[in-house]
Amino acid sequence: MNEIGLGIIGAGTVGSELIRRLTVGLDDIRDKTGLELVIRKVAVRSLDNPRAFQLPAGVLVDDPFSLVEDPHVDLVIELMGGVDPANELIRLALEHKKPVVTANKELIATNGQELLETAQSQGVSLLFEAAVGGSVPIIKPLWETLIAEQIVQIIGIVNGTTNYILTQMKHHGASYEDALEKAQKLGYAEPDPKSDVDGSDAAYKTAILASLAFGAWIDPYDVHRTGIENIQAEDISYATELGYTIKSIVILDRTILGLSARVYPVLIAHDHPLARIDGATNAILVEGPFIGQVLLAGSGAGGEPTATVVLGDVISASRSLLIGGDSIPRVRVSPEDVVPIDVLLAEWYVRLEVDDQPGVLSRVAGAFGDAGVSIRLVRSDAESTNLIVMTDQASESDHQLAFSTLNDLDVVHEIASRIRVHR
Amino acid sequence: MNEIGLGIIGAGTVGSELIRRLTVGLDDIRDKTGLELVIRKVAVRSLDNPRAFQLPAGVLVDDPFSLVEDPHVDLVIELMGGVDPANELIRLALEHKKPVVTANKELIATNGQELLETAQSQGVSLLFEAAVGGSVPIIKPLWETLIAEQIVQIIGIVNGTTNYILTQMKHHGASYEDALEKAQKLGYAEPDPKSDVDGSDAAYKTAILASLAFGAWIDPYDVHRTGIENIQAEDISYATELGYTIKSIVILDRTILGLSARVYPVLIAHDHPLARIDGATNAILVEGPFIGQVLLAGSGAGGEPTATVVLGDVISASRSLLIGGDSIPRVRVSPEDVVPIDVLLAEWYVRLEVDDQPGVLSRVAGAFGDAGVSIRLVRSDAESTNLIVMTDQASESDHQLAFSTLNDLDVVHEIASRIRVHR
Repeated sequence: MNEIGLGIIGAGTVGSELIRRLTVGLDDIRDKTGLELVIRKVAVRSLDNPRAFQLPAGVLVDDPFSLVEDPHVDLVIELMGGVDPANELIRLALEHKKPVVTANKELIATNGQELLETAQSQGVSLLFEAAVGGSVPIIKPLWETLIAEQIVQIIGIVNGTTNYILTQMKHHGASYEDALEKAQKLGYAEPDPKSDVDGSDAAYKTAILASLAFGAWIDPYDVHRTGIENIQAEDISYATELGYTIKSIVILDRTILGLSARVYPVLIAHDHPLARIDGATNAILVEGPFIGQVLLAGSGAGGEPTATVVLGDVISASRSLLIGGDSIPRVRVSPEDVVPIDVLLAEWYVRLEVDDQPGVLSRVAGAFGDAGVSIRLVRSDAESTNLIVMTDQASESDHQLAFSTLNDLDVVHEIASRIRVHR
Repeated sequence: MNEIGLGIIGAGTVGSELIRRLTVGLDDIRDKTGLELVIRKVAVRSLDNPRAFQLPAGVLVDDPFSLVEDPHVDLVIELMGGVDPANELIRLALEHKKPVVTANKELIATNGQELLETAQSQGVSLLFEAAVGGSVPIIKPLWETLIAEQIVQIIGIVNGTTNYILTQMKHHGASYEDALEKAQKLGYAEPDPKSDVDGSDAAYKTAILASLAFGAWIDPYDVHRTGIENIQAEDISYATELGYTIKSIVILDRTILGLSARVYPVLIAHDHPLARIDGATNAILVEGPFIGQVLLAGSGAGGEPTATVVLGDVISASRSLLIGGDSIPRVRVSPEDVVPIDVLLAEWYVRLEVDDQPGVLSRVAGAFGDAGVSIRLVRSDAESTNLIVMTDQASESDHQLAFSTLNDLDVVHEIASRIRVHR
């Protein structure tokens, strides 16, 4: 018998879509895979809320712990998000030898190591393809197909919301506030968009990618993050004029000092593969000595793509359960510190509001020069008091020293913007 | 004990690189996976040829059948290519319950159904990620992560050689012959490039993609193929001027008439994601109602990327062997006919060499109109006798009728080129 009883925790956007697919789309899955996936329990916060789906009586419950322990639930799908009580629920499911599929990036980033060890010791699967990259296959490619590569760098756009906002600002000249409002209307941004726009969401995903690609469990809170809240329409125009696009990216690489992991907006050349990734799309560029560059891209957000990938994991985990094994590759992952950002090298784009008088440039250039930072390009704007400076590569701390001196110059009213440049 | 004895059949570019990685790079694999991969036998055509690798005495053999049957060989890697005797060797290995990893697209396209059934009935893995897309993860994403999608279309650049040649022609104004020669010098094209440039290689890969994405075993010889041998530098320039790039692509889609599968060069708009895929890169665009578009791209050729992906499969198959299962998803695939190309709709770019006299355009337009084909664009070139016509969508057979009438017109010296347009 190929019947697998499913317990689904959480019926938000992704959960509701998954339930829909497991009811109206079930014939297709049965035809393709021979599996009989049956929803046995769905745990929600409140039984009184209106739902977009219909389930037989008794399926909807409000106690996720009873769902996990229900003997008719063979496999648990966790879509509630957050660390507590998701962590406890997943641990419990694994201890009952029930495979778990989750899209919970925060939980995997913070507790993934322990949960994977539990899954391995119990011999059941813990899959989380939907935690990074939306519909982009990235977890399994890193875990399986590209496991023999000695990956040196991963660069990616892993937050659909910020990429949508930046794309709106670029192509429609929208302000950050208007673009955010539009993203919220379309459901790309949450009513509280904080974790997207401040880089936290991307930092969790970065930590997960570090474990897969570099065998390093890193603390997601050690991932340097700069949000996009301060990007202004003016910077987008200057960047475009200078041949760049502004994107919020994650970078993971092995430097001579150790593993570096950071999330920040950057100016990136128009012809860089990530510069063309528009809208709510996610894209991840994996680089290594043997494969060169592999680019994986697709919808980064939304119930339909996410539910599709969750369902893919459910099918894999069900198959492993039926043959009595797990589908977790035994890949060694060890805790590792990340290099603090201060010691890294960087290039910066800086927009200064300055006095409109002779001699300003000389004093600004002096501030950079005294800090040991060379200037690559200066552009003054006759129609405004903006002075744009792009620097050559120098350490982050030298740059911070230059910024601090600039702040003290009387001819500089304000450092209106500063954004890193990625080459 | 996590030791797996490997038997490698074939020591060409990929095989030699694989052997190098399994000797000098073994520590890295052991550290990452805990597996002890040991080369037990390598079968080559002739023991006398010089080799770029060193192996202990007795490892190199010239009888692949003894390799397969060797009790110390736990897993077989087939890199010899071609259908015979690879088919027999793989069948034999599977019947001995030895998992097989292969990069042999011709064999999987023609005999994959039978071999997969054998593997499934024996409960061992048959993996072939390297058969399509070089370093691009595509087999497992379609088999696992995206299995719940109802894929409607796959478009891709799956032959690195032809893409390299077309890129050289576009960016360096090279002729087809010069670009091919350069590709051969760089090792991107074989001394006999026929199966790359005539579309056969891509047709095998198309058949494999059909089985994965559409659950359809199709005959690779039924995949319509047009090669790139007749693409001329002039056409590349006209295409560029009109806003297009010429690429050799594969298209698989479900039309109302059935499954369609074809390989041909097309004019594709500059802003299409595939238009920017340059050099020996491969890229595959998977489209469905839930995921939208997913793009997977990476190096399409070469020993290093291919050996890396083969090694990824070896690690997956070893792991499955140790836990006593296979890693072949049970996905239903049935034999299916493909729709003949004549009944499909198409748009064409046509370059005619015509008389330089008034009235020519009217007769040319008449030939299209009489065949029921509307014209989208006409461009005459004052500096030559070239007349470029781009048509609107009409059936392939109506187009063929128009071409046949044009051939009979006395004002038309020659249909110098005709290339489809993909929108």
